[in-house]
Amino acid sequence: MTTGCTNGRAAGARASGPGVRLIMAKSDLEDLGRRAVDAARILAATGSAAKDAALRLTAELLEEHSHDLLEANAVDVQAAHAAGADATALDRLTLSPQRIGAMAAGLRQVAALPDPVGEVVEGSVRPNGLRVARVRVPLGVVAIIYENRPNVTSDAAGLCLKAGNATMLRGSSSALESNRAIVRLLRQALSKAGLPEDAVVLVEDVSHEAVVDFMQLEAIDCLIPRGGHSLVDSVRRNATVPVVVDGDGNCHLYVDAGADLDMALDIVVNAKTQRPGVCNAVESLLVHRAVAAEFLPRAAGAMAEVELVGDEAARAVVPGMGVATEEDYATEFLALKLAVAVVDDLDAAIAHIARFGSGHSEAIVTTDIASAERFCREVDAAAVVVNTSTRFVDGGELGLGAEIGISTQKLHARGPMGLRELTSAKWIVRGDGQVRR
Amino acid sequence: MTTGCTNGRAAGARASGPGVRLIMAKSDLEDLGRRAVDAARILAATGSAAKDAALRLTAELLEEHSHDLLEANAVDVQAAHAAGADATALDRLTLSPQRIGAMAAGLRQVAALPDPVGEVVEGSVRPNGLRVARVRVPLGVVAIIYENRPNVTSDAAGLCLKAGNATMLRGSSSALESNRAIVRLLRQALSKAGLPEDAVVLVEDVSHEAVVDFMQLEAIDCLIPRGGHSLVDSVRRNATVPVVVDGDGNCHLYVDAGADLDMALDIVVNAKTQRPGVCNAVESLLVHRAVAAEFLPRAAGAMAEVELVGDEAARAVVPGMGVATEEDYATEFLALKLAVAVVDDLDAAIAHIARFGSGHSEAIVTTDIASAERFCREVDAAAVVVNTSTRFVDGGELGLGAEIGISTQKLHARGPMGLRELTSAKWIVRGDGQVRR
Repeated sequence: MTTGCTNGRAAGARASGPGVRLIMAKSDLEDLGRRAVDAARILAATGSAAKDAALRLTAELLEEHSHDLLEANAVDVQAAHAAGADATALDRLTLSPQRIGAMAAGLRQVAALPDPVGEVVEGSVRPNGLRVARVRVPLGVVAIIYENRPNVTSDAAGLCLKAGNATMLRGSSSALESNRAIVRLLRQALSKAGLPEDAVVLVEDVSHEAVVDFMQLEAIDCLIPRGGHSLVDSVRRNATVPVVVDGDGNCHLYVDAGADLDMALDIVVNAKTQRPGVCNAVESLLVHRAVAAEFLPRAAGAMAEVELVGDEAARAVVPGMGVATEEDYATEFLALKLAVAVVDDLDAAIAHIARFGSGHSEAIVTTDIASAERFCREVDAAAVVVNTSTRFVDGGELGLGAEIGISTQKLHARGPMGLRELTSAKWIVRGDGQVRR
Repeated sequence: MTTGCTNGRAAGARASGPGVRLIMAKSDLEDLGRRAVDAARILAATGSAAKDAALRLTAELLEEHSHDLLEANAVDVQAAHAAGADATALDRLTLSPQRIGAMAAGLRQVAALPDPVGEVVEGSVRPNGLRVARVRVPLGVVAIIYENRPNVTSDAAGLCLKAGNATMLRGSSSALESNRAIVRLLRQALSKAGLPEDAVVLVEDVSHEAVVDFMQLEAIDCLIPRGGHSLVDSVRRNATVPVVVDGDGNCHLYVDAGADLDMALDIVVNAKTQRPGVCNAVESLLVHRAVAAEFLPRAAGAMAEVELVGDEAARAVVPGMGVATEEDYATEFLALKLAVAVVDDLDAAIAHIARFGSGHSEAIVTTDIASAERFCREVDAAAVVVNTSTRFVDGGELGLGAEIGISTQKLHARGPMGLRELTSAKWIVRGDGQVRR
């Protein structure tokens, strides 16, 4: 297997013993890219039925072969354990029958969503009689660089396939055996559904040199890096292909002078503690000076498990609260830690968010309509949230059906990216011999 | 003037004598970026009235000060002439009262267009009662790198301003005096309209080092390079900010077996000769073998001023036609030259376009509905065109009102980019205390 791609079951089984790490020549990567482009061309002209069949077949195969998947995954988990991976990393890496079931269910759910391809986005007849329409089409080849959760392999490939795209997957080296096993099943299902296997390819060379080559592969129409700071930085520096950044979530909750403090308490507890390790959890709490003395002690009492750090005014009303540094305000903790600041007014809250926010999700709790409107207008983020939890900023919760990530950039997709964000649009111009004068 | 920016009229007049070339420290560029970001924040919360007033005031100032503009432009033209610029370059660079009038008219036209900001793109109520909407907002800071046509300075800044964006302009060194003069008037108009002058800034350091720093300036939300291959390549290699590429147009016209040959003749003549120097002109003609012997001699006769080069089959029916090389088929001539190929069928035409096309505009002439449908579905380009001229692929002609360029990438904007393509969308999520379980 010279291309480094999982070429269906037999080839994959021949080449990939535990611990086998492939080094790929740049020309092999280019070849893999060309195959994905060819597959994408076929997928673009494929109707929903075949794509949905492939998704459902993959779900079946994942369930049928869950024993093989667990075996492949055990090799990864063992190696990660031996290499000293921490508990969080091991948990993310580990598959279970339940997690495989969730992957299958996710694929069936995507199969049931409406196909975005072919949707007429807009259309009109021009004064000269030209019929003009913009029609949704697949992006082409979507590349995903991601970390060690093997479920991303089927989730991402499933969404891309539904939107008519070929997918180039580049997962973590620590999940290579798991990813090989999952991609093998995806390719089997594609083949059974009469679609090109190369609609899903795995880049098996997980070396650092290869990842830069990958970010510059001409075949790629859209690269989505899903990972931490260093990955996103590397993509910003090195990528020459179009990118959508699934970025950090340094999210704020601002409790206004006019807030319903009971509501604010429910929301801050939910936004901080319901799932602290995700990007739409809150990392900083801003409280208007007028309500700080009343609200902050209640908040501290309601989140005893959360480490609070704050400015002088916050510490004055919550005994024992640690000191918040500038760095704390700039940090996405992804943990049970919350930075607190007391602000003089809405302007100060907006300025704090403009300075420290990452443009993900920013919330206000207020009963004052003018404050809510100004916050919505002036806070520059993918999502602004009024009187509810930032945890709702999620593709499923906002009605997209599923999401491949949450974009913190402003081009192409902002906020949760669903199927539609995995498409482009093509102009179709039909005439009867019109020429331009 | 340490920042290298045209700080209004007086400062600009003090610092910019003919031939003055500023070298900007990276920190000065960053400072300029920060000022644009601050201006963008104000613009984002500015209604249409003030933006339109600034556009109309700029139009007035351009007309009032056309004598000053012509003087500044004469300095550039003289220097370009002395440096040996060719006739085309000199023509692009030269302003005239008519061209200044067209710039003013363009700004008034943009002022009259509907404001894209605030448009609700979609909205719904979720099962838990959350009111969810996606609302159009400005991108923020839009940067344009462009060549020597000074009218781009007011055209681009005008469109960006209407869409609520601050603009950072980086024109050609050869147009620096003209651009300084135009930007000075834009900033005067902004100030008179009560808007921040830094909503339009000119990067006056036109050195090659500075352009790479510019492509990596964190302040920029969207960079649009408008220029040739080498600029676009440099942006692809060096930019770390989000980019929309205004790319090449290696456009094809395919004359199908079932084409109305009279119609095909009108269209090819129009698409090739009406304005050969623009990106939506046709560069290659593909003709179905069944009609080549009849059509090609007629086409050659109708375009005597066009240099035709072709493959063997084309040359067999058009005596004296030159030999087309692979490179000819890959070249955007932007001149009265046309590469011709005879193809066996629609598949061969689609394959030729897939190989040589630049993803801009691709046309078919046919009476056969199945051919038209397959061409529309399978050709991967920003615009597919049936029975009309590729010259219509243009923001004005397609109903966008105006355009800032034509994107050949698939992310964010594909095809003509109007005001809407200069915006992003923000999620607004409103609740009544909902939390996630």
